[in-house]
Amino acid sequence: MLSKPSITIAIDAMGGDHGPSVMLAGAATALDRHPDARFVLFGQEGEVLPILDTFPKLKQRAVFHHCDVSIRMDDKPSQALRQGRYKSSMWKAIEAVKTGEADVAVSAGNTGALMAMAKFCLRTMANIERPAIAAIWPTLRGESIVLDVGATIGADSQQLIDFSVMGAAMSRALFQIERPTVGLLNIGVEEVKGQDDIREAGRLLKETEIAGLEYKGFVEGTDLGKGTVDVVVTEGFTGNIALKTAEGTARQIGSYLRAAMTRTLMARLGYLFAKSAFDRLRDKMDPRKVNGGVFLGLNGVVIKSHGGSDAEGTAAAIDVAYAMASNGLLAKIENDLGRVYASEVSSPAPDAPGTQESVQ
Amino acid sequence: MLSKPSITIAIDAMGGDHGPSVMLAGAATALDRHPDARFVLFGQEGEVLPILDTFPKLKQRAVFHHCDVSIRMDDKPSQALRQGRYKSSMWKAIEAVKTGEADVAVSAGNTGALMAMAKFCLRTMANIERPAIAAIWPTLRGESIVLDVGATIGADSQQLIDFSVMGAAMSRALFQIERPTVGLLNIGVEEVKGQDDIREAGRLLKETEIAGLEYKGFVEGTDLGKGTVDVVVTEGFTGNIALKTAEGTARQIGSYLRAAMTRTLMARLGYLFAKSAFDRLRDKMDPRKVNGGVFLGLNGVVIKSHGGSDAEGTAAAIDVAYAMASNGLLAKIENDLGRVYASEVSSPAPDAPGTQESVQ
Repeated sequence: MLSKPSITIAIDAMGGDHGPSVMLAGAATALDRHPDARFVLFGQEGEVLPILDTFPKLKQRAVFHHCDVSIRMDDKPSQALRQGRYKSSMWKAIEAVKTGEADVAVSAGNTGALMAMAKFCLRTMANIERPAIAAIWPTLRGESIVLDVGATIGADSQQLIDFSVMGAAMSRALFQIERPTVGLLNIGVEEVKGQDDIREAGRLLKETEIAGLEYKGFVEGTDLGKGTVDVVVTEGFTGNIALKTAEGTARQIGSYLRAAMTRTLMARLGYLFAKSAFDRLRDKMDPRKVNGGVFLGLNGVVIKSHGGSDAEGTAAAIDVAYAMASNGLLAKIENDLGRVYASEVSSPAPDAPGTQESVQ
Repeated sequence: MLSKPSITIAIDAMGGDHGPSVMLAGAATALDRHPDARFVLFGQEGEVLPILDTFPKLKQRAVFHHCDVSIRMDDKPSQALRQGRYKSSMWKAIEAVKTGEADVAVSAGNTGALMAMAKFCLRTMANIERPAIAAIWPTLRGESIVLDVGATIGADSQQLIDFSVMGAAMSRALFQIERPTVGLLNIGVEEVKGQDDIREAGRLLKETEIAGLEYKGFVEGTDLGKGTVDVVVTEGFTGNIALKTAEGTARQIGSYLRAAMTRTLMARLGYLFAKSAFDRLRDKMDPRKVNGGVFLGLNGVVIKSHGGSDAEGTAAAIDVAYAMASNGLLAKIENDLGRVYASEVSSPAPDAPGTQESVQ
């Protein structure tokens, strides 16, 4: 094989709470880790160029395109699309993926606007009705992928299967897991009505052998932190609530810990002795380390960086973008979906009885 | 006023992973804290009586009734109802509330069976279609009430309003908050379809002045740990996933912390110095302290204790039961629901435009 072609990453330099200063600093940090990467930067020249001058290495590996329009963090998706289509830095970054100028796009702009533009510009893949946002979730076993964490509310059984296939492909691309385990997020009570789509998806995933993933059954909220499965599949409302609940709980416990460790002289002394252990723990709990929501199901890969991210967090999102592009996420998803839609999963047997299963 | 009548608590002594040993030890601990409480114990005499003999104080304040049948933790609700109705220790404990022998019932038996029996025996209150399970959620501001955490999947706008009223009444009964703040759990994205019930409930709660609660708008998953509102309202699927995700995240961070504090000699030394701080933290994170899911919307109060609880956890659930009974939870809910159903909340104006609001 020839040497791997270098990866080009399109950056919406205007997105996020901090704009170009953080986006460019993040790109510079990511470049240190991936010296072969190239960047295409989109933004307002008056703001971006002076900052770019302070990162000479990045400047050497980057192309800059001026854009008049920037999407604001509080713009509604429809408004953003109306005002920013074809010309905003967000749109242009996505479009660079469509035209092939870049392999992947990263924005810290508002999620709704980014998804609306990405859908409009890149369109969903064949057979995919709705894209999903996949989050990387730190667990006791390492990291899992959880999707959808908020692209759309609700999902029918076919969409849950699509999410399973796409999440497994991402797990392979990001973590090189040959046959990722997949679980459907559910609640423990068995004889409850209303979860027909999840049951039906479970039945289909169980009955149909899908190459490239191992279906493990239902998982519960507690399984997320345990890392019971490599890929946790759920619809966007529940996924978003779960993600934000976990973030909130982590922050809450961090507060308790800080309060406990500063309360008495002995505690402060203990903190000093154990400082490196605490640093390790902080590192482990650092939400910046797992920054980067991956839009799946579109004809191109777009990564959403957290709006409030600093340079380190932005670099982590760019790391994810780099990994997704260099490991051929898109091709993997297309290939896997193609196989699924050529098989029986998309045409469930009528009147098949529902089954119940659970990972316990 | 005459002196407050003593509270009688019915205990399903056979429920939970550990059965009578833990249930009775928990009751004995709770009795130390509420010396005026009385107990009615239901279970198999061969198992319960020898243990009861080891708690002489409890024995003095308790009446025991033998029951042949015990509900197993893995019995399905329909199965439990078929085999255990009218005769199991679980049924009898609930029935004691119906007949007035007890003011409140506590069981650590399986949730689905307990809810099925409680509904069958006590029936739902007037106007209430579905009961809810309310959890007490530790927050940075103290404790909030979150409901529904798994009684039923899905909830329409009227049910979400019922949950709001019942949760607020519980907040008043448990925490003596005169006018609890209420938020509807939602995701941050505004222009997403599918959350019509939540939007509609939000509109009604905003437009209608409901005595005894202050509606604050939508809250997100991160607001749970912050304690942004006193009462968080959601449907049972999402509520259950959120609750278990928070539990899992707390356990996960506890694991990280233990690993960090035992890894090096310095960390272990630091741990020794800060031991009392760590004990305080452990105490703060102790899930046993907030044990007790409260069934709301039935003609009687039933408390679900965690199946895996030890004596301390069981005592906490009995504490909640005692507080609910002595503060007249049932009367508060009946009164508040009565006022709501006499007002306009139950008859929304047709074609009223939906509104969007958010606690930010």
